[in-house]
Amino acid sequence: MSTLEDILKQVQSGELDIEAAKNQLTEHWQSQTVAELGFAQIDTDRERRVGFPEVIFGEGKSAEQMIAIMKRMKEHSDRILATRVDQAKADAILAEIDGAAYHPTARAITWFRHPMLKVHDGYIAVVCAGTSDMPVAEEAALTAECMGSHVERVYDVGVAGIHRLFRRLPLIRGANAVVVAAGMEGALASVVGGLVSKPVIAVPTSIGYGASFQGVAALLAMLNACAPGISVVNIDNGFGAGYYAGLINQNMAKRL
Amino acid sequence: MSTLEDILKQVQSGELDIEAAKNQLTEHWQSQTVAELGFAQIDTDRERRVGFPEVIFGEGKSAEQMIAIMKRMKEHSDRILATRVDQAKADAILAEIDGAAYHPTARAITWFRHPMLKVHDGYIAVVCAGTSDMPVAEEAALTAECMGSHVERVYDVGVAGIHRLFRRLPLIRGANAVVVAAGMEGALASVVGGLVSKPVIAVPTSIGYGASFQGVAALLAMLNACAPGISVVNIDNGFGAGYYAGLINQNMAKRL
Amino acid sequence: MSTLEDILKQVQSGELDIEAAKNQLTEHWQSQTVAELGFAQIDTDRERRVGFPEVIFGEGKSAEQMIAIMKRMKEHSDRILATRVDQAKADAILAEIDGAAYHPTARAITWFRHPMLKVHDGYIAVVCAGTSDMPVAEEAALTAECMGSHVERVYDVGVAGIHRLFRRLPLIRGANAVVVAAGMEGALASVVGGLVSKPVIAVPTSIGYGASFQGVAALLAMLNACAPGISVVNIDNGFGAGYYAGLINQNMAKRL
Amino acid sequence: MSTLEDILKQVQSGELDIEAAKNQLTEHWQSQTVAELGFAQIDTDRERRVGFPEVIFGEGKSAEQMIAIMKRMKEHSDRILATRVDQAKADAILAEIDGAAYHPTARAITWFRHPMLKVHDGYIAVVCAGTSDMPVAEEAALTAECMGSHVERVYDVGVAGIHRLFRRLPLIRGANAVVVAAGMEGALASVVGGLVSKPVIAVPTSIGYGASFQGVAALLAMLNACAPGISVVNIDNGFGAGYYAGLINQNMAKRL
Amino acid sequence: MSTLEDILKQVQSGELDIEAAKNQLTEHWQSQTVAELGFAQIDTDRERRVGFPEVIFGEGKSAEQMIAIMKRMKEHSDRILATRVDQAKADAILAEIDGAAYHPTARAITWFRHPMLKVHDGYIAVVCAGTSDMPVAEEAALTAECMGSHVERVYDVGVAGIHRLFRRLPLIRGANAVVVAAGMEGALASVVGGLVSKPVIAVPTSIGYGASFQGVAALLAMLNACAPGISVVNIDNGFGAGYYAGLINQNMAKRL
Amino acid sequence: MSTLEDILKQVQSGELDIEAAKNQLTEHWQSQTVAELGFAQIDTDRERRVGFPEVIFGEGKSAEQMIAIMKRMKEHSDRILATRVDQAKADAILAEIDGAAYHPTARAITWFRHPMLKVHDGYIAVVCAGTSDMPVAEEAALTAECMGSHVERVYDVGVAGIHRLFRRLPLIRGANAVVVAAGMEGALASVVGGLVSKPVIAVPTSIGYGASFQGVAALLAMLNACAPGISVVNIDNGFGAGYYAGLINQNMAKRL
Amino acid sequence: MSTLEDILKQVQSGELDIEAAKNQLTEHWQSQTVAELGFAQIDTDRERRVGFPEVIFGEGKSAEQMIAIMKRMKEHSDRILATRVDQAKADAILAEIDGAAYHPTARAITWFRHPMLKVHDGYIAVVCAGTSDMPVAEEAALTAECMGSHVERVYDVGVAGIHRLFRRLPLIRGANAVVVAAGMEGALASVVGGLVSKPVIAVPTSIGYGASFQGVAALLAMLNACAPGISVVNIDNGFGAGYYAGLINQNMAKRL
Amino acid sequence: MSTLEDILKQVQSGELDIEAAKNQLTEHWQSQTVAELGFAQIDTDRERRVGFPEVIFGEGKSAEQMIAIMKRMKEHSDRILATRVDQAKADAILAEIDGAAYHPTARAITWFRHPMLKVHDGYIAVVCAGTSDMPVAEEAALTAECMGSHVERVYDVGVAGIHRLFRRLPLIRGANAVVVAAGMEGALASVVGGLVSKPVIAVPTSIGYGASFQGVAALLAMLNACAPGISVVNIDNGFGAGYYAGLINQNMAKRL
Repeated sequence: MSTLEDILKQVQSGELDIEAAKNQLTEHWQSQTVAELGFAQIDTDRERRVGFPEVIFGEGKSAEQMIAIMKRMKEHSDRILATRVDQAKADAILAEIDGAAYHPTARAITWFRHPMLKVHDGYIAVVCAGTSDMPVAEEAALTAECMGSHVERVYDVGVAGIHRLFRRLPLIRGANAVVVAAGMEGALASVVGGLVSKPVIAVPTSIGYGASFQGVAALLAMLNACAPGISVVNIDNGFGAGYYAGLINQNMAKRL
Repeated sequence: MSTLEDILKQVQSGELDIEAAKNQLTEHWQSQTVAELGFAQIDTDRERRVGFPEVIFGEGKSAEQMIAIMKRMKEHSDRILATRVDQAKADAILAEIDGAAYHPTARAITWFRHPMLKVHDGYIAVVCAGTSDMPVAEEAALTAECMGSHVERVYDVGVAGIHRLFRRLPLIRGANAVVVAAGMEGALASVVGGLVSKPVIAVPTSIGYGASFQGVAALLAMLNACAPGISVVNIDNGFGAGYYAGLINQNMAKRL
Repeated sequence: MSTLEDILKQVQSGELDIEAAKNQLTEHWQSQTVAELGFAQIDTDRERRVGFPEVIFGEGKSAEQMIAIMKRMKEHSDRILATRVDQAKADAILAEIDGAAYHPTARAITWFRHPMLKVHDGYIAVVCAGTSDMPVAEEAALTAECMGSHVERVYDVGVAGIHRLFRRLPLIRGANAVVVAAGMEGALASVVGGLVSKPVIAVPTSIGYGASFQGVAALLAMLNACAPGISVVNIDNGFGAGYYAGLINQNMAKRL
Repeated sequence: MSTLEDILKQVQSGELDIEAAKNQLTEHWQSQTVAELGFAQIDTDRERRVGFPEVIFGEGKSAEQMIAIMKRMKEHSDRILATRVDQAKADAILAEIDGAAYHPTARAITWFRHPMLKVHDGYIAVVCAGTSDMPVAEEAALTAECMGSHVERVYDVGVAGIHRLFRRLPLIRGANAVVVAAGMEGALASVVGGLVSKPVIAVPTSIGYGASFQGVAALLAMLNACAPGISVVNIDNGFGAGYYAGLINQNMAKRL
Repeated sequence: MSTLEDILKQVQSGELDIEAAKNQLTEHWQSQTVAELGFAQIDTDRERRVGFPEVIFGEGKSAEQMIAIMKRMKEHSDRILATRVDQAKADAILAEIDGAAYHPTARAITWFRHPMLKVHDGYIAVVCAGTSDMPVAEEAALTAECMGSHVERVYDVGVAGIHRLFRRLPLIRGANAVVVAAGMEGALASVVGGLVSKPVIAVPTSIGYGASFQGVAALLAMLNACAPGISVVNIDNGFGAGYYAGLINQNMAKRL
Repeated sequence: MSTLEDILKQVQSGELDIEAAKNQLTEHWQSQTVAELGFAQIDTDRERRVGFPEVIFGEGKSAEQMIAIMKRMKEHSDRILATRVDQAKADAILAEIDGAAYHPTARAITWFRHPMLKVHDGYIAVVCAGTSDMPVAEEAALTAECMGSHVERVYDVGVAGIHRLFRRLPLIRGANAVVVAAGMEGALASVVGGLVSKPVIAVPTSIGYGASFQGVAALLAMLNACAPGISVVNIDNGFGAGYYAGLINQNMAKRL
Repeated sequence: MSTLEDILKQVQSGELDIEAAKNQLTEHWQSQTVAELGFAQIDTDRERRVGFPEVIFGEGKSAEQMIAIMKRMKEHSDRILATRVDQAKADAILAEIDGAAYHPTARAITWFRHPMLKVHDGYIAVVCAGTSDMPVAEEAALTAECMGSHVERVYDVGVAGIHRLFRRLPLIRGANAVVVAAGMEGALASVVGGLVSKPVIAVPTSIGYGASFQGVAALLAMLNACAPGISVVNIDNGFGAGYYAGLINQNMAKRL
Repeated sequence: MSTLEDILKQVQSGELDIEAAKNQLTEHWQSQTVAELGFAQIDTDRERRVGFPEVIFGEGKSAEQMIAIMKRMKEHSDRILATRVDQAKADAILAEIDGAAYHPTARAITWFRHPMLKVHDGYIAVVCAGTSDMPVAEEAALTAECMGSHVERVYDVGVAGIHRLFRRLPLIRGANAVVVAAGMEGALASVVGGLVSKPVIAVPTSIGYGASFQGVAALLAMLNACAPGISVVNIDNGFGAGYYAGLINQNMAKRL
């Protein structure tokens, strides 16, 4: 199919009249940026535009739909990430998609054309408050790894026993970006934010009960953190936090 | 006026018939426990029952109403505490109530028949996160002092600079009860709770903006604190926190 | 392993150079305070610091994870408490942990190296409004018992039939601390708070429907109680309330 | 103007053709039931339909609008009630409306063609928890009085000193309907509801601070009252509560 | 067991000394008013005090607990009402409690020693907006019937087709009290309230989806009804509405 | 049965006396507008009054109830629409209602006496943000089709890849009304609203997690859209949006 | 400045090379669609795109900023509408903008190059529940008039006296679109929606107190209206409702 | 004062015994990290730890307090930033603090020992939706500038006229980090996030009315943005967003 340059040159040379040029420009652009799939329009331009291909949100999609999307994406991209996939769906998908891997704690599927590489210098720290926050933390870690970042995990260091955090501080401080996942009162984000000079991405988790309101208490706490250098993503959005950290790390690498 | 014992004895001796006994018992009890004031019924039995006389909540009462209540309370009690009193009301009250004192940061008025004494052993620590939390912290401290407790103040030690807290830890750990006042994300309560073995009373303050929702973020955080040994009072309820700490301290003193 | 004193002495004597001293201090401290378990870092310093070992929150942990944690904790502590454990998990755990006991109403597991003793003088009253509040009340009672407190239970005394409460008042007034569990409108906490001179820990329960919003109505009522001497813990947090009451009782005992 | 009967008879007699009959029926009905006032359409049929004339809600209406409405209502009704009127508006209105009276605590204006009479047997009890709840309680009391009920006021009997309530119980129990106004945690409604066999109308007030959320805590508590026989009106809706109690009393009187 | 009169007389005559009198008074009172059942304290004084025996809320109670409570209540009362009972529990209970009947739409069980009679003059109208509101409406109707009221049902007359309501108006207007159950936007309560001169008890139902928030939209609408003469009970609280209407009807009957 | 005209004429001619006329008028009107069905009163006047027959909301109705309603509606109307019907209910209904069809994505059943025709000129565009929004979008599309509108579907064009929307803009701009279904942050409504000159009906969907609060985030966003020309229906209310668009289209057709 | 056609032709003819063509296209487009004003970028393309010029939201803008924007808009458009303008700002603006008019109830300013005409056939009905809703209703009416629609006002016809609405029904039914403004419980929207076959735009107002939550009760009620054919705009958004109704009317006129 | 190294060496050499060493270490650390100010403890270690000195939040502090803090900070730092300062406070402060400057739109005060330099390569884009969002955007821009970043401002490009955004896209895409400030529905964040490959920091503003709930609608929208690469700070927290962007930019510069 012709490139933008080609089309404009054909207009210049008179090979193409104006109406035809308009049509060709439209067709060209559409074929470059959207893969029609009936029930879905895959945004194949995403990687060029924002640095990573469209990620498949597994919740509410059938295994069949996911397999169809993945097959189509393999034609356009070298890596695929699907989040919020339960074991049953994963089994069905892995039977169909050669080379896909399932990560049960992170509840995610990855597929790589080439071995997954740590392509960037530097690393990301993923910190979580309790063992129950691990699925969210793992989703963050895996996402960042898919984007080419090395990840250091620092788990179960909540403020009820704050010395557990302090002994891991040097590792956290060395990261290019820090993800902090915490439920209940989410205080860990403020404490980490007050101790490091790197951007902290706080991800509230829905761990807790009663007045935690499925993560709202942690969300509000993180939005009101008294320490600067903290930004927040949606409750349980490990993917978003890992993506954000990966983006920072990737941009730093590009600059070198 | 006759005591309960007297009345029953008169029944026994036949001096009093049953109908008359019923009436006398009612009158006796009412005169002991309520001071009628038209617009208010002062609970003069409160000190006997819960250990401290009725405290006057100044918000929404006129200076005139407060003066009338105080004058009547002076007949029944040796100490008076009025909270949420602004400067103008305080001026009017002090002009009428001999010996009353106004505490502007705590926005409270106190009156004592005898000099205020630290009657109990041990002390209470009142900790706050930022200078803006001081009015609430001072209300707590003053209330505890009115109940006879010695108070140690540890102010402006929020988690954004957590070393400020750590250097005061021995003082906090030595208290019989610890009040922690904090706004914004209220993380200080969790951190203190994880470091001491004494009951912590957390009081969320309305300091903050946006998604702090006038103290709701701190309130939820404190209710969901991951450290045990923390209980919570209403937003900006310095009085309640100080009272609770004073109660614990007073009860410990009684036991000795 | 060397103590802090040992290490400093070795520095003094020249046995240890400064770099080595730093490393040894770090190692020493970590081994004293954290038991690494892969998915969890047990805070083995908790008992020394706050007076009770780390309590296992069973919700969201597998039986396998809980067994592993308990086995490790048995090396460090003489007593273990695990809350929010359902019958199925309890069966699996009891098969593996010798001497553990399951308390079905409280949904909790306890393990003691030595027989559980009422080590303190005085007692705690656990009061609840209705029979549906009993699981929360029992969690509170059991927790306080694990901390060595004697507990008196006063159940089903809600304000719809307030005389049921009044006839139990002397028992409640004699306690060192009072736990009040109530759902629906939570009025029982205010009524009890107005009648006793001991700290009341109010625990809202999620009992109710419609505009009770899973315990929010009771929570707000308790935070706004017109009687002083009341503090509040999270909805359904029987553990937190019992712990708090146990802490008060334990501190009073220490003073004697 | 012709009555419904007249019109139908004229149809029967042939005096009126069918089209004309339709028009006359419409005109007749409208003139009976609405007084056009440009910015307002006064529902002059209200008294016949629901037992009391339209009540003027003063908030957000100018003194001029209120005067115009009152003047028009005087043509149709023997009594007028206007609520939520501040002192300044009241002054302007009283200068124009002969015989109107202002009740400052209740913030209401009344006008009666004939002296206000207690026309019904029996009485209504209006109970409130604290002195700050008095404006709402007075609005309720005045409204019921306007409807012809005798009212007994029982003020400042909140549950923090529950004996104040108990000594007034016989009076409350004798009423045909009981209004209970309370802010903060609103527990008074539940306690009264558990002690009387008459309909209780609970009106939450906006008295309180922090987590009272301008009366929401009391509103939720009252909706979740564990005692039956309690219904609820809007926050600070003294008028609605008094009206409801007056309606019950009025209906009982009609039956005799 | 001795009556209050007996005891006082024995004091008068000297048969009883004062200490013994105190004990007897306590025992007497307790045996009259509470039936101890281990997990429950049945309030056997309720009927005398508020006009109807304690009602059993079935949600969260086992069939065994309910059977035990019912058996005990049969010793003290001539009628029993249990609400929120599902079919399975009902089967178990009916097998044990002779003469009990299950009402599946109302999800309630009733038991009467004597045939249920319409003991009062007059009737109650129970109105509902849609067929989905029928379980709540039936709970209200059945409760009122248990209290001796005759009930007229006016179902499926929501405002989307308001003429369905208008043709039933005379029946509604003739009632002594009107229950209106409606979900979604709950507008029916306002419309009925504007058309009748009897107390309306509005019960919001949880029927709806999305921004109905399980009945909150209807609850708020009813609390803000522009027509007076409307009071509100908790979401889905058909029992409470029927009880309230029954109370009004019963009190009116008593007066005659 | 006699028409209104007939009855009035009989009055005129003297065939009918006035009392009898009143009764006949009432009967006439009722039989025309309500079909009594025991548990339901079908509003058979709806189509005349608002342009479309009553639609059956399937949630919370049994298959039996729905079959009964449909059978009765077939006597009054040429088309039937039932929404929120799951597969199992649909199977039961299709077995009984000849000619009914089930639309699984839209979860709706339709029945037409005559083939469904696109009776109006012009068309409606139904736009959705993601594949998960399709059930709501399809419910909207099907509803509009039932009302006689032609529908163009533009699916999976959310703002994360906004070029997908732009290439479909001419189609959207040509519609007489535009339905936009979106979950998560609902931004698509604002973007579309800023680009077209036709009424946009925004329908928030419950797609999302965490702080989407089951569609509340999208609902609020749409209510606050900075572009004018947008109105909003309830969360997941595809039916309401399609109905509204169909109404606009139908009214435009009538005018021609 | 050159048109799109011109530029492409110059490319065809070779007058313009490709880089220059790109630049010219960009410049061309920008100058057509945005008027730079330092603190604001006026969207001068809005009228072409959505059918009405950008409307100035006056809240939070200074009189100076509004004057500057209006002066610039006069160069691009024949009509200007500014909403939420208080009297003081209006005075300042009218002194500077020749021909501008202020509408105090609607709190809006209009300016027309030519006399405002009712350019469309048909009309819009603006209905409101109470006199306090008039500012919102007037904002809606004025906006629709600015768009060229004739408006019929039907005010103060709330459901507390529903006959006031019924006598105006024929007028409402004749409109092409109906705006319904109501506060408190917002029931008027449902009632109107059930009686007309035209699109109803419901605008909740913030009129009310207590549990109306500044219009939230009415908003929820309108979103949950049981009658179809109703869509909703933001609280107090009279402009949005009038704009929407005007858009429907304008589109219908275009079709003729 | 001695350094850490000095102290340890003195221990090694025997000059210092162990107890004395402990004391000296404590003093040393405290003097390095906290400046005591009575009502405040300035965290002078903040710059070393997190990369920027403590920022003064002006709301709720008196001019006197702010002057005292600034004077003390000048001893420790080369730059000072104070936010949320109104004009009156600013006047008082500038009269006392030589070289301080007030920025009225951003409502902030800055002081620099040396001229403010753009010390880093690259730049930050600050984007806002409307002119009313400018104070928040300016606070962000100024904060980033204080941290040494160059800032490009892209204002008034909300999605109602999305072409205004598109023509500025190349500038936005070239930034190292992008701040997006928007009120109302906050859709701009999602649209920008879908178009750039740099971290986007979304800051919801409180601009809007009704169901915007002072910024909550925008906050929720941003947390639920369908485009990845977006994180969120508190409502109106321009400072936090600018700080976060500055941190990213500063860290990237350090890497070069």
